[in-house]
Amino acid sequence: MVINKKYKIQTACFLSMLFFNICWAQQPADFVNPFIGTSNFGATFPGPIAPRGMASISPFNVSGPQNRPLEKDSQWLSNPYVNENTFLTGFSQVNLSGVGCPELGVILLMPTTGEVEVDHLKYGSTYSNEVAKAAYYSVNIDKYKVKGEFTASKRVGVNKFTFPKGKSNILLNLGVGLTNEEGAMVKVVSATEIEGMRSVGSFCYNSPEDAYPVYFVAKFSKPADNFGVWKKPAKYNGVESQWMGYNGKARMMENTIKTVVGDSIGSYFTYKFDKEEIVEVKIGISYVSIENARENLEKETGTKSFDAIYKETYNEWNKELSKITVEGDSKDDKTIFYTALYHTLIHPNTLNDFNGEFPEIKRSKIGKTTATRYTVFSLWDTYRNLHQLMSFVYPKQQSDMVTSMLEMYDENGWLPKWELNSTETFTMVGDPASIVIADTYLKGIRDFDVDKAYQAMLKGADQIKNNPLRPGLKDYIEKGYLTTENKGPVSTTQEYNISDYSISLLADALGKKADSKRFKERSLSYRKLFDKNLKLLRPRTADGKWYEPFDPASGANFEENVGFIEGNAWQYNFMVPHDIKGLKKLMGGEKAFSNQLQKIFDSKQFDMANEPDIANPYLFNYVKGEEYKAQEMVKKLVREYFKNEPKGLPGNDDTGTMSAWLVYSMMGIYPVSPGDPIYTITTPIFDRITIKLDPQYYKKESIVIEKEVNSDGKIKAIQLDGITLNSYFISHEDLVNGKILKVIQN
Amino acid sequence: MVINKKYKIQTACFLSMLFFNICWAQQPADFVNPFIGTSNFGATFPGPIAPRGMASISPFNVSGPQNRPLEKDSQWLSNPYVNENTFLTGFSQVNLSGVGCPELGVILLMPTTGEVEVDHLKYGSTYSNEVAKAAYYSVNIDKYKVKGEFTASKRVGVNKFTFPKGKSNILLNLGVGLTNEEGAMVKVVSATEIEGMRSVGSFCYNSPEDAYPVYFVAKFSKPADNFGVWKKPAKYNGVESQWMGYNGKARMMENTIKTVVGDSIGSYFTYKFDKEEIVEVKIGISYVSIENARENLEKETGTKSFDAIYKETYNEWNKELSKITVEGDSKDDKTIFYTALYHTLIHPNTLNDFNGEFPEIKRSKIGKTTATRYTVFSLWDTYRNLHQLMSFVYPKQQSDMVTSMLEMYDENGWLPKWELNSTETFTMVGDPASIVIADTYLKGIRDFDVDKAYQAMLKGADQIKNNPLRPGLKDYIEKGYLTTENKGPVSTTQEYNISDYSISLLADALGKKADSKRFKERSLSYRKLFDKNLKLLRPRTADGKWYEPFDPASGANFEENVGFIEGNAWQYNFMVPHDIKGLKKLMGGEKAFSNQLQKIFDSKQFDMANEPDIANPYLFNYVKGEEYKAQEMVKKLVREYFKNEPKGLPGNDDTGTMSAWLVYSMMGIYPVSPGDPIYTITTPIFDRITIKLDPQYYKKESIVIEKEVNSDGKIKAIQLDGITLNSYFISHEDLVNGKILKVIQN
Repeated sequence: MVINKKYKIQTACFLSMLFFNICWAQQPADFVNPFIGTSNFGATFPGPIAPRGMASISPFNVSGPQNRPLEKDSQWLSNPYVNENTFLTGFSQVNLSGVGCPELGVILLMPTTGEVEVDHLKYGSTYSNEVAKAAYYSVNIDKYKVKGEFTASKRVGVNKFTFPKGKSNILLNLGVGLTNEEGAMVKVVSATEIEGMRSVGSFCYNSPEDAYPVYFVAKFSKPADNFGVWKKPAKYNGVESQWMGYNGKARMMENTIKTVVGDSIGSYFTYKFDKEEIVEVKIGISYVSIENARENLEKETGTKSFDAIYKETYNEWNKELSKITVEGDSKDDKTIFYTALYHTLIHPNTLNDFNGEFPEIKRSKIGKTTATRYTVFSLWDTYRNLHQLMSFVYPKQQSDMVTSMLEMYDENGWLPKWELNSTETFTMVGDPASIVIADTYLKGIRDFDVDKAYQAMLKGADQIKNNPLRPGLKDYIEKGYLTTENKGPVSTTQEYNISDYSISLLADALGKKADSKRFKERSLSYRKLFDKNLKLLRPRTADGKWYEPFDPASGANFEENVGFIEGNAWQYNFMVPHDIKGLKKLMGGEKAFSNQLQKIFDSKQFDMANEPDIANPYLFNYVKGEEYKAQEMVKKLVREYFKNEPKGLPGNDDTGTMSAWLVYSMMGIYPVSPGDPIYTITTPIFDRITIKLDPQYYKKESIVIEKEVNSDGKIKAIQLDGITLNSYFISHEDLVNGKILKVIQN
Repeated sequence: MVINKKYKIQTACFLSMLFFNICWAQQPADFVNPFIGTSNFGATFPGPIAPRGMASISPFNVSGPQNRPLEKDSQWLSNPYVNENTFLTGFSQVNLSGVGCPELGVILLMPTTGEVEVDHLKYGSTYSNEVAKAAYYSVNIDKYKVKGEFTASKRVGVNKFTFPKGKSNILLNLGVGLTNEEGAMVKVVSATEIEGMRSVGSFCYNSPEDAYPVYFVAKFSKPADNFGVWKKPAKYNGVESQWMGYNGKARMMENTIKTVVGDSIGSYFTYKFDKEEIVEVKIGISYVSIENARENLEKETGTKSFDAIYKETYNEWNKELSKITVEGDSKDDKTIFYTALYHTLIHPNTLNDFNGEFPEIKRSKIGKTTATRYTVFSLWDTYRNLHQLMSFVYPKQQSDMVTSMLEMYDENGWLPKWELNSTETFTMVGDPASIVIADTYLKGIRDFDVDKAYQAMLKGADQIKNNPLRPGLKDYIEKGYLTTENKGPVSTTQEYNISDYSISLLADALGKKADSKRFKERSLSYRKLFDKNLKLLRPRTADGKWYEPFDPASGANFEENVGFIEGNAWQYNFMVPHDIKGLKKLMGGEKAFSNQLQKIFDSKQFDMANEPDIANPYLFNYVKGEEYKAQEMVKKLVREYFKNEPKGLPGNDDTGTMSAWLVYSMMGIYPVSPGDPIYTITTPIFDRITIKLDPQYYKKESIVIEKEVNSDGKIKAIQLDGITLNSYFISHEDLVNGKILKVIQN
């Protein structure tokens, strides 16, 4: 029986503290639970951020032995906040969401009371009563009985502290932070303003020479009764130390407006309150200059109140999230869905200032844009599904992201690989930008310079010498694969294959037949690494022999190994989404393919926490009669790994890639072959999903995906506008030109 | 026989390299030899500075083991340049002259050739062919075959490098420096401009919390072909260091315009020259902001050439030095005289920017002046003679200095003690500002707020609690002396006595009879420390007993001791210039006084290298019939300690105090009792000295001091305008209202 929930609006009633009943219709933004992913290394943060915002606020609780084992200096830790931890040392004003390396998590604001104490190990506190919502976070800081509330506009973090009567302080700590970098500058401009910068960078302990500044201006709603700066210099060991009574000691510099630089510095504002008082602190951020940070602050937030800014950002979130309406009974399902969608709308994020300025790649110039310059392209992750989701639901954003990538090519001579605030971190492998751009173009989003894009792709694919994007390219072109002299030779060969396939598809669309053929051929070269005995891909040495000894299981759980990057032979075995047909043949036909695929799950080699194999469950759709396995497996994985709780992500969100997987999986479609504008279909989790389409790019106003539940069984038929599909695949073009995609179960 | 040299102009002829004879009239500025004081701890520097300039350039050769033992990190060393050293690591753009503690000596510019090397121990070089003149310094840098030439305007250092053909570099090193502080910021603005700041401070290893920034903008006459920034971060020791391949290593950041901060950073410009080429680098300095540094540069030097700036600054020097014309045969005498006068015109120096802005004391505010805000008041030194010389020859400067001191009182609540770039370093002891201000007023320079000055003096003299100027004041007022519970109780008592005497004189002039009497009485309290048996001043303990054991010789050569600051009982015994009559009485009359005074010299306790006893040779003028001893002793000391060579100063110049001693001594007069507007007279070294008087302050155009040499004997008579004086003393008023002071020898 089909229940039409088209016009049903879900309502929620809360009993307020004042015992009035307040009821309202729950909006998509109300289902966001920012705590999801704040445990189990999801690496998201619970604090506020605007959609694709530059500024964000996170409670910072990863410093200090009180937080061990999840303490930033005692292990590899990539998040400013861990849900299990208890010791809070501030609220960081710029943060990354769902990444695998420590970065940003700096400019820590912290309210305290009593005498000024600037050692975070001493001023830190436990906390309680955390509330996290889209665009809002609040917490009580136990030690000081201060309530902190937080919201943000795109480039401004807004902090609100309710202090008890007495002596109160707001510390701005520029020393402690999540990044590996150190170094900051600070200057108190007046009793209501602080300006400065903090060095960040060396993402994944790479490219230290590209470390870069994040500039800020902090405005306080109440003038400080007293202010100052502190600096703890490095301890000096030379002969002069005998005369330095102050050697290595923190210095308190009161009432000064001088510029102070150092690795361990900060500024404090102090107040004397004769009753409970509120202080709001707006912190404008810029990657260009202090002046721009100030302008961002003034233009975006001016004299607006905390509540007004919260409301605006909440509305922005709601507008974005309302692009997809899901219907169903489970509040948890809606929560994990909208939270996932929320997580896909954080990165890539805005890099340009309000006035359009941004640092170009390598920071040799300041560029200017009238659109949005995006940054944080974790493309090895996001090429698989996140950009496909953007092209579908947020095509203008995706178009601007492609334009941003092409600007990077102009600035740097190369498309991005893992771009972070205009540094190319060269983290991970492959040449994923080509896939993203081809995929975008082939989905009909074409308001970018495709000729330049194509030229950029060819450069990355063909330039053998001094090619930072594709190391090992000579072997790849000559032999068809990278040898064990390269990092992760098998998986990197697979990555290059997928990129080459995308290039061949784009070449075809652009009428470049010869290129199309050439790259199509190149894209199949992984086959040379297929060991027929093992039915697995296997590394070859420089002389063409199989690498010995070879343990296919080696490489699980991010263990370093000879053949594969962040994975093993099992996890990577099916990562040739463009040539499943060929893979089947290599494996000995449909059944052998299916068996081998099933074996991954049965032998617990499948890893939901990392990208190489996340399309695997969908690959059963390539085996006639076994599509139900895809349906079952996807549902099982959604239920097992994604939950409305802090550990409700399988691992690093990877700037929204895991979340995008969930969004697609809950909608019953998945972009199974990146670059290729197709989706494969499973059972949606929701009864009905309505996706609004952007009229600038699509003809139809929206597309509905509907589940007709006759029983809880397998899919019986799939219909587009009443016409039954003859496969479990649908082209992007067909989908966006349809009205209703109906998935009918047995 | 008297030789009238009134109209004689000395000429000098030099054989030029091109074998043309060039002859010109030597101007006072041509007699300046900036190498004087660059050895023997004189602590002057040979590079260019404008009169009372903020910017100055010094070759920097005190870093690196090559320079041991006179290497800055292996001992207490207070100068950026040591004449004996050989290893040059740059040219520092802000420097102090003749101080006893390491400070400034930062912003090192260094030309190199070949590949960029940023480690000063590796890029450093020997050097040759040094030339130093007023406003000019040049040197050949051996390793790179680069010639460096240097001049300066008031707030801008001007560097000129002649590079050979090939790859050349200009390094701006913000790491290594003379100061104890570390920390800098740098940003390449364009291929012709760098901006930034460097932390300095902790003068004499004091007041680290008052460390402060010096801002700069560097403009290059030729755009760099390439530029960059380097940073050597501190080595990290935590668990993350295993992932940091770059841990503690210097990073080269090419072609970047990002702001970089750190302790060991710098910027480099590189050029490729196909022939010998010149690059000029102008470096504007400010203690307020980068913007002001840029404005200083533009307003003072704009598009002016190196030669034009040199000429201007040379002319400024010549104008200042020409206030005194000396006549005599010895070129060396003129050289040591004009170089000494030059050294008295360096500090106090200009703090305010071209637009009048300056950091107020403690840097809580930016002040603004339409006059000159002076800084670097080493008052424990300079109260003795330097300010007296300024009042006499440069009264407008002295008036502005007093105004600056009163501004400090307004800003800080206290007159300065040892003020350095708007930090009160509280170095040394006593309350010397009162003496300087009273002395100035009593010399007839009165265009400052004397009521405020008087109020400030009273506060310093009377406020017992929380008085940073006069620690131990309670004991001093109650007992008449500081006890051994205080630092240097005897000498500090003497210092307070001298200050109190000055206050009593000023009180008298202002008609405040009661105050005058009170302070006159207070000024004599040193008498309670006079041990009649030893005929020396001696410390007393808190219970009033003589401190035991007591060794009057202990304390020589800056040795720490219980009674005295930087001296011993002998050296301080006569430092009661206001009560020589009383001292004579204590000692048992004229003869006993004279014997005791002579004993200091005979027993080699006299120290020409430090201030407490430098007036001693003049004290023979207080003993009838023994004035010839003053004449002999002063002449002996001038000849022994002051020479036209690098070690031609007796020790630290003490911001011109030793030089002022020489200037006065060579003119045959000395302000023997600070605060009291009198001079005592000995034989001038020169035949004739003409001192121009400032018509704004004095009625006469000039005063001439003339020596009538009948034989090489003792003074027979002293005449002012033909009238014989009845003593070896003359009041300031009489002197400046006379025409000729004639010293007639036997």
